[in-house]
Amino acid sequence: MNGAESLVHTLLANGVEVCFTNPGTSEMHFVAALDHIPGMRSVLALQEGVATGAADGYYRMAGKPASTLLHLGPGLANGLSNLHNAKKAGSGIVNIIGEHASTHIELDAPLTSDIEGIARPVSHWVRTSDTAGTVGKDAAEAVQASMVTPGQIVSLILPSDTAWNDGGVPHEALDAPTPAAFDKAALAQAVEVLDGPDSLLLLGGGALTESNLELAGQIAAKTGCKLLSEWSNARLERGAGRVVIGRVPYPIDIALKVLEPYKRIVLIGARAPIGFFAYPGKPAILTRDDAEILTLADAAADLTGALVALTEATGASDTPPAHVAEAGVPERPTGPLDLDRLAQVIARGIPEDAIVVDESVTTGRAFFPFTKGAPKHTWLNNCGGSIGYSLPAAVGAAVACPDRKVLTLTGDGSAMYTVQALWTMARENLDVTILIFANRSYQILRGELTNVGVGNPGPRAIDMLSLDRPDLKWVHMAQSMGVEGCQVATCEDLEAAMETGLASPGPYLIQVDL
Amino acid sequence: MNGAESLVHTLLANGVEVCFTNPGTSEMHFVAALDHIPGMRSVLALQEGVATGAADGYYRMAGKPASTLLHLGPGLANGLSNLHNAKKAGSGIVNIIGEHASTHIELDAPLTSDIEGIARPVSHWVRTSDTAGTVGKDAAEAVQASMVTPGQIVSLILPSDTAWNDGGVPHEALDAPTPAAFDKAALAQAVEVLDGPDSLLLLGGGALTESNLELAGQIAAKTGCKLLSEWSNARLERGAGRVVIGRVPYPIDIALKVLEPYKRIVLIGARAPIGFFAYPGKPAILTRDDAEILTLADAAADLTGALVALTEATGASDTPPAHVAEAGVPERPTGPLDLDRLAQVIARGIPEDAIVVDESVTTGRAFFPFTKGAPKHTWLNNCGGSIGYSLPAAVGAAVACPDRKVLTLTGDGSAMYTVQALWTMARENLDVTILIFANRSYQILRGELTNVGVGNPGPRAIDMLSLDRPDLKWVHMAQSMGVEGCQVATCEDLEAAMETGLASPGPYLIQVDL
Repeated sequence: MNGAESLVHTLLANGVEVCFTNPGTSEMHFVAALDHIPGMRSVLALQEGVATGAADGYYRMAGKPASTLLHLGPGLANGLSNLHNAKKAGSGIVNIIGEHASTHIELDAPLTSDIEGIARPVSHWVRTSDTAGTVGKDAAEAVQASMVTPGQIVSLILPSDTAWNDGGVPHEALDAPTPAAFDKAALAQAVEVLDGPDSLLLLGGGALTESNLELAGQIAAKTGCKLLSEWSNARLERGAGRVVIGRVPYPIDIALKVLEPYKRIVLIGARAPIGFFAYPGKPAILTRDDAEILTLADAAADLTGALVALTEATGASDTPPAHVAEAGVPERPTGPLDLDRLAQVIARGIPEDAIVVDESVTTGRAFFPFTKGAPKHTWLNNCGGSIGYSLPAAVGAAVACPDRKVLTLTGDGSAMYTVQALWTMARENLDVTILIFANRSYQILRGELTNVGVGNPGPRAIDMLSLDRPDLKWVHMAQSMGVEGCQVATCEDLEAAMETGLASPGPYLIQVDL
Repeated sequence: MNGAESLVHTLLANGVEVCFTNPGTSEMHFVAALDHIPGMRSVLALQEGVATGAADGYYRMAGKPASTLLHLGPGLANGLSNLHNAKKAGSGIVNIIGEHASTHIELDAPLTSDIEGIARPVSHWVRTSDTAGTVGKDAAEAVQASMVTPGQIVSLILPSDTAWNDGGVPHEALDAPTPAAFDKAALAQAVEVLDGPDSLLLLGGGALTESNLELAGQIAAKTGCKLLSEWSNARLERGAGRVVIGRVPYPIDIALKVLEPYKRIVLIGARAPIGFFAYPGKPAILTRDDAEILTLADAAADLTGALVALTEATGASDTPPAHVAEAGVPERPTGPLDLDRLAQVIARGIPEDAIVVDESVTTGRAFFPFTKGAPKHTWLNNCGGSIGYSLPAAVGAAVACPDRKVLTLTGDGSAMYTVQALWTMARENLDVTILIFANRSYQILRGELTNVGVGNPGPRAIDMLSLDRPDLKWVHMAQSMGVEGCQVATCEDLEAAMETGLASPGPYLIQVDL
């Protein structure tokens, strides 16, 4: 058995069943091993940003890592920004990165690069396998490292001679790591500070499951505290019958206003609110100067344990939860689309058990209030701020959950970054309906120009933030990669298009003109 | 004057006139400075791989660096693989990378990352500007560093407070660095070893200009040595009236055979030939074991000086050059396309003074013999092996040389990597004609599977190397980004399509079915 074969056997034994890939020459033995060892679903991407973003979406929905197979340093580099997003989301990913044969590296061939150096800024764990005999053990430890709460990026570098040499030893499954304990010493103080509407329970990460939100709702009912989540949540359970939780807004001035009332804040799985960016003359810390902020459990901790303990300590165990969403969607809107009517159509269209992959940036800021009473669904945000996450994440979510509908909401600028994902959706016949919000600009930056003090931008600045000239024709784009689609500008047409897309078992793209 | 304004003034004063960009919030002051300070042409890219690849193509044709403007670590990360290619090509690029305000970094916002860490593996020079007052000096030194022979990647990181604070001081132009001297001590030995057809003069980089090739041709005529260039050349001048030079082949077995005769080799701007990859049981050094290899001038040296001196030392100064290409193109082929007929149609279609950007990988291996007598043209290869270089490089070449026709030859797999470049071509109305060779697979990897010993790949392996299911529809793809195009499968249709494309002043895409 060669090193590559021991690697595939080890990944399978450790529960890794999917590989998002774009291989090259140096990975051919791994490809050969995947070919004759059954069990690993290999999903080809036409650019590595699609592969790594898909692994992010997969982890969020499957709760376990996928592998990626990347071609040397440049292949890794292409996937780096979505690894950044995955790292910030707490997603576990096992990257397998090919490397030249160990004897070849010193020759400085065209594709030679510092792979460990490229991997390190986005990885929690980096290792180069030295020999065929150690690949199996390295891979088992890599999978284990990827499952450290809340999920870690690991990069295992595989020199091609390590892959092709004999002497591979598959490694059995290692135990999954357990999360750290929450801060029990802080529990009594947390009970004390959560008291009335000027106190806030701020949740993030794994605190946003259906059952954990139920506990938070009980605590809110009992103590009168308010509930919020971070602006970007890796995975949030929503919809009728679930506890509603808002998000700290993205726009700095609105965020400051929303957080202004809170004198006492308890964090479970969330970090203290800060600005996405710094702005001249505006604070970076979004909470009031005198706010008391207490971390009961950070992202690495047992968040469910923390919420159970806090529920008991506040005496809320028998209290019915506050803020439970009643079933109900907005009235049927008609006529031309605007941002509110868009949100209303979407709210009416979300199917039961849907996965909503949201990268709507500016367009989607009003989606939450309108969609809270829709059928139960799961909402994924971009946690790292690097655009181009949603189409790949939708690929991964659809692979993880073949029985659920995936609805992707994305701005046109973001979608262009990793547009190659459409091809993978068509190839794998993934059940994804995509709404492209075509505002023909980096709309968010128009606002940011003003925020940094550029009140009256001239034509050269506007030109650098505009996506018109030429307009992107999204239906052509979709068709070029085997995805059907249509273009809409009214409520009625969007409603019909969403019905068409959601009824089909494969991908469907809707260009929504705004 | 703020730091961003001093940066723009300094770049302009140091001869940087083009910025390939995709900006974000942290770069808004730079955008504002570009807006009100005239002189910098800003070219928007919809993914940063397009921006950095364009800067590579620009340097090769303009002979001086462009700037890029990249949004924080992830924006840089998206451009990393084409920076790798540019680094291997010896192209100078001045990356301006936004960073959070210095007070914001410690807060670990979603977009925070180790920017210097991401930049270092692909950069010769990395610096973060500390204050608005030093940005000008940093920028002048950055441009100077980018022009170290043969061209270097520099990454200047600009925290947003450094950009927005007052106190910027523009810096005047610094002297361009001079190349290192060639190895004069090796000259006499070089004269001695270049003797007869078992000796080889191997050229690379700046040795491949028209006048330098003329010198090489004189040396070959006088000494009887053979001439070759590396497989990948950043820029090679070719066509009727110029000295013809072949390339060391890519496929390992053919390369070994081509180099087998040479017992004595002199290198000018080239490196000793090695395999692109290592293969089990095959050598990595492509020259014979007993070959004497002498470096007269490496890539950092004065290559013209070396060739002039060698011409004089061999007594070839009055010798007419050998291997001068006679004008002439193949007979007009007809009927269905195959690889030879494809090369013949292309050879007949290359217009005078064209820039050919070649990423044809497998399809184009026969292009050189057929095209040697075409009108004078310039040929650019991918020097770093990371696919997705050609469409962006064509953008940069067209921006650098608005009066020349750009002909891009690319495989379908490579083109998909940075397909967003089509939009920039349309927006800037760049005079680029693109041939997409649609073989619907990573054809090169089919061969590499065999090379690494996988003789009989099964369906899962084949599936990971295939681009069919679904077929890419390139005409739709082009139209989606505002580029006209057509699809051809015969010699006659390709000839007509090339005429149409080359006659138009803007971009035109031809899907060539193979």
